[in-house]
Amino acid sequence: MPLLGLLPWRAWAALLSQLLRPPCASCTGAVRCQSQGTRDLSPQHMVVREKILDLVISCFKRHGAKGMDTPAFELKEILTEKYGEDSGLMYDLKDQGGELLSLRYDLTVPFARYLAMNKVKKMKRYHVGKVWRRESPTIVQGRYREFCQCDFDIAGQFDPMIPDAECLKIMCEILSGLQLGDFLIKVNDRRIVDGMFAACGVPESKFRAICSSIDKLDKMAWKDVRHEMVAKKGLAPEVADRIGDYVQCHGGVSLVEQMFQDPRLSQNKQALEGLGDLKLLFEYLTLFGIAEKISFDLSLARGLDYYTGVIYEAVLLQTPTQAGEEPLNVGSVAAGGRYDGLVGMFDPKGHKVPCVGLSIGVERIFYIVEQRMKTKGEKVRTTETQVFVATPQKNFLQERLKLITELWDAGIKAEMLYKNNPKLLTQLHYCESTGIPLVVIIGEQELKEGVIKIRSVASREEVAIKRENLVAEIQNRLSES
Amino acid sequence: MPLLGLLPWRAWAALLSQLLRPPCASCTGAVRCQSQGTRDLSPQHMVVREKILDLVISCFKRHGAKGMDTPAFELKEILTEKYGEDSGLMYDLKDQGGELLSLRYDLTVPFARYLAMNKVKKMKRYHVGKVWRRESPTIVQGRYREFCQCDFDIAGQFDPMIPDAECLKIMCEILSGLQLGDFLIKVNDRRIVDGMFAACGVPESKFRAICSSIDKLDKMAWKDVRHEMVAKKGLAPEVADRIGDYVQCHGGVSLVEQMFQDPRLSQNKQALEGLGDLKLLFEYLTLFGIAEKISFDLSLARGLDYYTGVIYEAVLLQTPTQAGEEPLNVGSVAAGGRYDGLVGMFDPKGHKVPCVGLSIGVERIFYIVEQRMKTKGEKVRTTETQVFVATPQKNFLQERLKLITELWDAGIKAEMLYKNNPKLLTQLHYCESTGIPLVVIIGEQELKEGVIKIRSVASREEVAIKRENLVAEIQNRLSES
Repeated sequence: MPLLGLLPWRAWAALLSQLLRPPCASCTGAVRCQSQGTRDLSPQHMVVREKILDLVISCFKRHGAKGMDTPAFELKEILTEKYGEDSGLMYDLKDQGGELLSLRYDLTVPFARYLAMNKVKKMKRYHVGKVWRRESPTIVQGRYREFCQCDFDIAGQFDPMIPDAECLKIMCEILSGLQLGDFLIKVNDRRIVDGMFAACGVPESKFRAICSSIDKLDKMAWKDVRHEMVAKKGLAPEVADRIGDYVQCHGGVSLVEQMFQDPRLSQNKQALEGLGDLKLLFEYLTLFGIAEKISFDLSLARGLDYYTGVIYEAVLLQTPTQAGEEPLNVGSVAAGGRYDGLVGMFDPKGHKVPCVGLSIGVERIFYIVEQRMKTKGEKVRTTETQVFVATPQKNFLQERLKLITELWDAGIKAEMLYKNNPKLLTQLHYCESTGIPLVVIIGEQELKEGVIKIRSVASREEVAIKRENLVAEIQNRLSES
Repeated sequence: MPLLGLLPWRAWAALLSQLLRPPCASCTGAVRCQSQGTRDLSPQHMVVREKILDLVISCFKRHGAKGMDTPAFELKEILTEKYGEDSGLMYDLKDQGGELLSLRYDLTVPFARYLAMNKVKKMKRYHVGKVWRRESPTIVQGRYREFCQCDFDIAGQFDPMIPDAECLKIMCEILSGLQLGDFLIKVNDRRIVDGMFAACGVPESKFRAICSSIDKLDKMAWKDVRHEMVAKKGLAPEVADRIGDYVQCHGGVSLVEQMFQDPRLSQNKQALEGLGDLKLLFEYLTLFGIAEKISFDLSLARGLDYYTGVIYEAVLLQTPTQAGEEPLNVGSVAAGGRYDGLVGMFDPKGHKVPCVGLSIGVERIFYIVEQRMKTKGEKVRTTETQVFVATPQKNFLQERLKLITELWDAGIKAEMLYKNNPKLLTQLHYCESTGIPLVVIIGEQELKEGVIKIRSVASREEVAIKRENLVAEIQNRLSES
């Protein structure tokens, strides 16, 4: 069996501490790390999130997706037996005399339930929302129990691999747009994974359990994964070792061709189907201009039970610190795949609606962007206020209120201090500390002369303009900057 | 006692059916009305919501607010004894071996907890998020158990009534901006409510319970509220009747002056403080140009326990169907007030942070706007796609993929059908049914001549342009429309 582009295990080991490094309160500026494993999002967090989500959503809309939302909780029975080994991490609601409910664990299962319930056969939708997982904060540090997901999915019966390729294109557009550095998208197919298991001699009853183990290869060393498969899941050591040979393979479309010739895989019908689709996929990815970002990777398994076809996962690459080393994987930032059977599980007659989709790992992206800003010492403004209304004299509250009303009513973002007689220095200091660019000043002299002073906070220059021209002048200045 | 602007009870009675009319699945186009009392939001809903929330949030930002978010659930102890009679409506999470948690019931208590926990003494923030209340869907129809709230709050010690007046200004800006028709904001003060109770002879131990009853006056007739107070809450009938006289009073600043002279109220220190603040408030509201939208209304009580000062509630007015009738109240669309004690309840040393804020009843607003669009037969586009990539011939998938990549990479919102060989008519029909304005067409002839056809879906006009000018030409056309 060919070993292509083997990533040295020492590199993986070196990564481990990085991957599990918690984005703890002191790192992120999080204001709380409650014992229940959630946190408040401060205005600083929110500004970063808003920018990132805007970019993600505008990409989803660029590809023709509709918005949608589902409730935070679902009937517990909807969610059970969809997530494999992780099902125990669901938050249940207390039985208060109604149905048994659980908080949603992802956005995919509610989407499938929605399609089946409304007999929707075709839909391209995005969904941004919170999901909840009861992971133990002490074991898997750095993960919060409440987090945001951004999903894009295409439901419907179409010609093969066209929507799948678009999902990969979207992942590329978003990751490029966010300027997170170099990245790579690993691609595999559940049918190839299962075919590989069959070819290696894994009993079919153990497929999903072994798949869950393989999925941990991005967080655990091979020897630990192997140990889990053999000691905990009862796999024969020689079977594990055969798998070990395959999961080290990754490469481009040439690896797909090579696998067609693999003596074991080429005997497996499922695997051949998967390889055929991957070949077509690479053709479309070339037309989309993103083939060089994609790597066929046999170690990619994806833990969730519901995948049936192509699966993928995007990882950021870190420039190597030592010459000769491969770029380091700093963690998954987007993932997805094809799930053709999930909708049918919710349909009374089992009617299937094939689906393919992706989820952007925005929490990790928020963290990376926040860290980068911190390193660069970048400050973010948490408000968008354009103009501050100030006075140098006492007893000018009424005039300030009239003035700020004019600004608000003209759509200008304006603030003033909630004091009858604030000191001018306090007012100007407020502008500097919060980044407000313009101050309009009204005092005795201005009132007498029918003018208003406009002050640039940066240059400290002041000019007097006629009161009636105030709004126009400010709009003018704001449109220039 | 003066009876000012008495709203006839028959009008209230007539309202009752309207107010309790459920926005049921068939009315709103909701795709599901699950037995658990929640619903999915379809793309149609989402488009309306996005527009309304954009307007609300941009108003909050215009007033200098920062964004913030808190987890969906809080420690149960944080939420208990904050909401008065409605506390039983909280959703609890199952005890899965950690703390006892409940889903948030509003955004105000989490905000107060955040301020206390982080020792924040001053903050102007907005928060848009879901909250959950286990109201019985069979009793209070038309309310869902999951709904969106949009809150704006100002925390901090400031000179009196300036932030309070700004909250009312914000409510006016939003309700005017949404063009929901005429509206009125009822204003009162908890200290006046309590002073009125004391003056009428309500025992202090019953203040909050009677306040809860009075709060129901917008949904129940006076005789039913009176019955609740007397029969269920043990109030003496003559005391109830005295309250009955007061709660019929509403008017402008002149009513404030009048109440200063009221023989009973003027003996009550608390009531006098409240009246003094209302007088100042009306002065600021006049400077903001919104005084005519505000009505001092002694029937306004607000059910929540945490209010301590000014309280307010905005109602939409409906043009009367019969001459001589007063405009009808079609329900509350925004509300809020001052809560100076809430933050202190979360501070170990009881340090207080005075707060005032408002909540926009966006669910009701969504419903009103959806109804209006339905009445007018307005259709909403649920996607923003600008260009569709089509072909009249077979075997043009590759060319379509290359073409759409160019468009996406130029930031143009584009779609195509996921078929190898779609029919031209199917493609054009897709554009018409989804409202896509432009089609770019590539076929054998176009490929040979190095051109692309651009077709306007509305006019059906087609022009051929050079392939290399495609993106520029489309951007040009889109900027014109």
